Amino acid sequence: MPGNTIGQLFRVTTAGESHGPAYVVIVDGLPPGLELAETDLQPDLDRRRPGQSAITTQRDEADVAEILSGVFEGRTTGTPVAILIRNRDQRPRDYAEIRDKYRPGHADMTFDAKYGIRDYRGGGRSSARETSVRVAAGAIAKKLLRERAGVSIVGYVRQIGDLVAAIDDPTAVRLEDVEATPVRCPDPAMAPRMIELIERMRADRDSIGGIAEIVATGVPAGWGEPVFDKLKADLGKALFSLPAVLGVEYGAGFGVARLRGSEANDAFVASEGRIVTETNRHGGMLGGISSGMPIVLRCAVKPTSSLPREQRTVTRSGEATTIATKGRHDPCLLPRFVPMAEAMVAITLADHALRQQATAPRT
Amino acid sequence: MPGNTIGQLFRVTTAGESHGPAYVVIVDGLPPGLELAETDLQPDLDRRRPGQSAITTQRDEADVAEILSGVFEGRTTGTPVAILIRNRDQRPRDYAEIRDKYRPGHADMTFDAKYGIRDYRGGGRSSARETSVRVAAGAIAKKLLRERAGVSIVGYVRQIGDLVAAIDDPTAVRLEDVEATPVRCPDPAMAPRMIELIERMRADRDSIGGIAEIVATGVPAGWGEPVFDKLKADLGKALFSLPAVLGVEYGAGFGVARLRGSEANDAFVASEGRIVTETNRHGGMLGGISSGMPIVLRCAVKPTSSLPREQRTVTRSGEATTIATKGRHDPCLLPRFVPMAEAMVAITLADHALRQQATAPRT
Amino acid sequence: MPGNTIGQLFRVTTAGESHGPAYVVIVDGLPPGLELAETDLQPDLDRRRPGQSAITTQRDEADVAEILSGVFEGRTTGTPVAILIRNRDQRPRDYAEIRDKYRPGHADMTFDAKYGIRDYRGGGRSSARETSVRVAAGAIAKKLLRERAGVSIVGYVRQIGDLVAAIDDPTAVRLEDVEATPVRCPDPAMAPRMIELIERMRADRDSIGGIAEIVATGVPAGWGEPVFDKLKADLGKALFSLPAVLGVEYGAGFGVARLRGSEANDAFVASEGRIVTETNRHGGMLGGISSGMPIVLRCAVKPTSSLPREQRTVTRSGEATTIATKGRHDPCLLPRFVPMAEAMVAITLADHALRQQATAPRT
Amino acid sequence: MPGNTIGQLFRVTTAGESHGPAYVVIVDGLPPGLELAETDLQPDLDRRRPGQSAITTQRDEADVAEILSGVFEGRTTGTPVAILIRNRDQRPRDYAEIRDKYRPGHADMTFDAKYGIRDYRGGGRSSARETSVRVAAGAIAKKLLRERAGVSIVGYVRQIGDLVAAIDDPTAVRLEDVEATPVRCPDPAMAPRMIELIERMRADRDSIGGIAEIVATGVPAGWGEPVFDKLKADLGKALFSLPAVLGVEYGAGFGVARLRGSEANDAFVASEGRIVTETNRHGGMLGGISSGMPIVLRCAVKPTSSLPREQRTVTRSGEATTIATKGRHDPCLLPRFVPMAEAMVAITLADHALRQQATAPRT
Repeated sequence: MPGNTIGQLFRVTTAGESHGPAYVVIVDGLPPGLELAETDLQPDLDRRRPGQSAITTQRDEADVAEILSGVFEGRTTGTPVAILIRNRDQRPRDYAEIRDKYRPGHADMTFDAKYGIRDYRGGGRSSARETSVRVAAGAIAKKLLRERAGVSIVGYVRQIGDLVAAIDDPTAVRLEDVEATPVRCPDPAMAPRMIELIERMRADRDSIGGIAEIVATGVPAGWGEPVFDKLKADLGKALFSLPAVLGVEYGAGFGVARLRGSEANDAFVASEGRIVTETNRHGGMLGGISSGMPIVLRCAVKPTSSLPREQRTVTRSGEATTIATKGRHDPCLLPRFVPMAEAMVAITLADHALRQQATAPRT
Repeated sequence: MPGNTIGQLFRVTTAGESHGPAYVVIVDGLPPGLELAETDLQPDLDRRRPGQSAITTQRDEADVAEILSGVFEGRTTGTPVAILIRNRDQRPRDYAEIRDKYRPGHADMTFDAKYGIRDYRGGGRSSARETSVRVAAGAIAKKLLRERAGVSIVGYVRQIGDLVAAIDDPTAVRLEDVEATPVRCPDPAMAPRMIELIERMRADRDSIGGIAEIVATGVPAGWGEPVFDKLKADLGKALFSLPAVLGVEYGAGFGVARLRGSEANDAFVASEGRIVTETNRHGGMLGGISSGMPIVLRCAVKPTSSLPREQRTVTRSGEATTIATKGRHDPCLLPRFVPMAEAMVAITLADHALRQQATAPRT
Repeated sequence: MPGNTIGQLFRVTTAGESHGPAYVVIVDGLPPGLELAETDLQPDLDRRRPGQSAITTQRDEADVAEILSGVFEGRTTGTPVAILIRNRDQRPRDYAEIRDKYRPGHADMTFDAKYGIRDYRGGGRSSARETSVRVAAGAIAKKLLRERAGVSIVGYVRQIGDLVAAIDDPTAVRLEDVEATPVRCPDPAMAPRMIELIERMRADRDSIGGIAEIVATGVPAGWGEPVFDKLKADLGKALFSLPAVLGVEYGAGFGVARLRGSEANDAFVASEGRIVTETNRHGGMLGGISSGMPIVLRCAVKPTSSLPREQRTVTRSGEATTIATKGRHDPCLLPRFVPMAEAMVAITLADHALRQQATAPRT
Repeated sequence: MPGNTIGQLFRVTTAGESHGPAYVVIVDGLPPGLELAETDLQPDLDRRRPGQSAITTQRDEADVAEILSGVFEGRTTGTPVAILIRNRDQRPRDYAEIRDKYRPGHADMTFDAKYGIRDYRGGGRSSARETSVRVAAGAIAKKLLRERAGVSIVGYVRQIGDLVAAIDDPTAVRLEDVEATPVRCPDPAMAPRMIELIERMRADRDSIGGIAEIVATGVPAGWGEPVFDKLKADLGKALFSLPAVLGVEYGAGFGVARLRGSEANDAFVASEGRIVTETNRHGGMLGGISSGMPIVLRCAVKPTSSLPREQRTVTRSGEATTIATKGRHDPCLLPRFVPMAEAMVAITLADHALRQQATAPRT
């Protein structure tokens, strides 16, 4: 199976290249009767789009989505929803450099190795611009989860470089706290320092990595399938499918390596008629199935690979050369990464919501 | 789709519970003509099995595999290979405690929430004993990769508790270095200290977490599918599908958050007619497609949840109680985790090897 | 994806060859809480097994099924059910002839072309003996459909050679009418003539084709997915996946070619608060989705290809030769085909029952 | 999995409704390097489109396809090809009648039963207009099969009403023979009589059924997967997924019911260094795997359900009423069905071509 589809029952297929005519996504499996319009998609598209603030790339892509199918009289019909985003910025440019030289950290070399042919304009299929239609699909998934299951997903920047946000309770972070600052870090003391760091990177013609944290609250116990399609496995796949992600962890994450079992286990307790855990080092999933506790995860995101400074590399034929990216790029991916990661979490949860509905025990 | 199958073209489906009659795995998609016998499976099964050394659980499960199909006159025929592992240890026990109480850190509660019914004997379907048939499938995948593509996979313990192995070159670690010690850590100075730590945990009726590192060498550039089935995404899913894994990272991993682009990017250079990178912070994949450099990844594994000491928990009906696991358990999962992780890496790489064969450009 | 799995949510994977150690089937996606034991499988296995009557092959294969997983305390747990059927008849024989000669009408030549290697003992993977585990899976599907959805599936022989059964109302045929005669034709006048014809074929060292009809009653309106996974499409695939099937038709079938629209359309009428059609030329599906009317379909089954008489053929290397099958074979496949076809209909309907449950509108 | 995707490695996903903004198809899995442009799609789109001749519906839909992705500098890149066909005819009409009344033979009732909501404009998702994008995908599949495997697919009308074409050798029919007449029947004596019959049906405000025959030549031996994904099974599914198909048969088809084994078996012979069969009653597949002989199949197509004459039906609430379709409709679907069926055969063969490439034995 080719790799442009994700999900089993909530199924997302994307197509498009960064400088081709358009991106398309088909969202299949959406239950009937959900109110849906382009206005539901635009807020998250705006959170993802370039040029949204002084600390992102200054390219201007409006990312206007058109719903082509699956909605009738304002509601989904149960048939697939196709969404079109035209690429505005198709003007001819001098791509000679990236046609013949492999940009370090990019997929230029690996696409050539795989296909023997490559749309080199702006990264082609490997461009992060492909996430625009994922974000549109994710906006639908979020709406489905919110309206049908009471699930809410909030992401934010946890770390940039050495700057780590202080966040006592990840489940208390609200969307408005995140959106209060262009860096999408809800720690009001740290946000300005992060912005300053990003601006310093830009001045330095460099970039910087970071960590995003995503929290999903309201997920009932019982979502996720043993053994291979554990919820943590499908979320992991979805998040690693995003560009630049080098690590994913849940709950205590890599820190668990230093813990004893007596420290790591979360005790079960009864609370208001529900069984919960006192602490949440497990990150909301046990045996790969949601526990009813908030799902808390983090993604490590590498610094932008495109740099305006010279980097050593080779040409397609292997000759040593240098390359300096001329376009405008984000000095830090994290602020725009947040809505991308939220989208992948939403798409995965929506899929498992439907999967659980298909096999749930009769009551 | 239910969650007991992984892979698209190299396709593994498992069934079985820890105290049911048997485990079964069907490996579908294996190319014809590969020499295969039960003796190919046993070495890895022995590396995974309980009771293999003083630092693992002392239960005795021999894990003898029988090939039921797909092999004729010593070679695969292209039809599915079914493998049976009978459970020997089915003697009646007193399961009353785990039938009615939720073990902290285990899937007891989440399975009940999902299905409303649960085989509570030894964890049932959620038992790590299910990985026995994964390891059998992985042994086949390793053989296929070795003989048809020259790929080699070696895993080892990188960290237990605060003890971190010093390994200069992950790609230089050989299987015999790993198997030289029951803790499967190729750092000869650190291995005895890790063993000592594990024994202290056992004496303390506690357990300890750790990190395993897996290296795949010989993977050619070009494996992996954009955009959702990136190799890093499918590997991430496969590894997170293992019990107790709370984190997965590639190359520089979470450390990348602190790096600048000028530090993180690996420069391309030509070497012996191939294009390689000078360093391997990218972990062997760019744009989710293999770069031809070794794939290097790490998994964070939580400490064993079953503890012989009392832990607070609740009954199925929510009443507060305590539980102390009576059975014999590994004080540290890491030594036996290594072959499980190798198996999942092998299964995923075998799948992508076939996927690339299906779509490779004509030469 | 290899071809040994069928179904999306009710998912059946088989493995095994006719003279290998065993057949295995994994039935994944079964909802929890269904009572299940080996005794539920045996009746249909007995209807399929060789040697069941004077007009079938006289080989003796008892086809005893063992459930290996997925059932606890007599009920399904929601985890995969694996079923094992050992092959008893593995005695060494002289297979030299079918190793080197291609039997007309069989898959010997095509398997060699596909794989370059073939288990030639009794047809290997292409043997109709593989349907034994399909029938076991089908028995589970039938039970699920009967208990959870009130669906009943009955198949019977409609035609053998020129002998066509007179059946006024296909939906009135009961299992006991079918099982009253070894030929499984519920027309009491035609059944003895069919038996006589089959016996004449055996005496003549020849075989004869026929048509089976399958009726599913109780399927509610709304099962089936537009556009590719129409119920008629998935049923068609399932039935064509059986050996020897050369045609499948629904309702008026091929006869519809001669009808006008005014003759072919079934008028909708209200009856007892439900909307039904006065007639059922559409065969129970409109737009590929069940209409609530009985699903009526027919399969054309070719005569047994193995004949005790000499047939012209070639060797693997292309030399002209002759072959006469020495083993004992059914002179007519139809009586044993009926439970196979019922099984495939049941597996497909069970899958669509779960699929509809996953996406049904909220009430 | 929702039902709007077909194929495993050559994977086609469609979206769109007959009176929504547009249809979209994403063709994933296309190998890199294939020359492709919109002009490759238009000929088959023109063969499918309404208003193409006096005997089809007179609606005017130009069906202009735009390729949105996956093609760079005139060649496929290995990334998904998205194709857009805008609906021109979106003018407001009076749909009150089909909103409230169930058209006999249509999917109005079953969609309501399934989803509880329905885009009633012109059939919505169930409209045969959806096949436009399938035909576009099929044109790509045909090109791939022709250029990479030497496979050619030709379909034609074999029967309309009682008029049966005399075609001695189905494999000798050429596209130009078919396109020589608007009825797409290559029997020059029968074509005018068929046209006359269709015109009589139109005058009578009625419609008529028929049979189409499709022939694929050049398919090498070895395509198709045992056991469920037999080529005949996947072709059967693909063809039954088309609207109005009530029957599918291969080779001798339903006629095989009357044959003896000694009559039905095709003898193997050597011819020009290849192993072939003397006759082709098996229809080009043995054991569900292609034999190297031409694949010959037939589809039974029901008469158009929409009739300009009054038919009895019910309203959504079950009240008896009548309906007469006001729009312009084909009095016989067969001439336009031919390219649809060719497309589905091509899509299925392309998928199996890639599947065989993935698992083929090494030479």
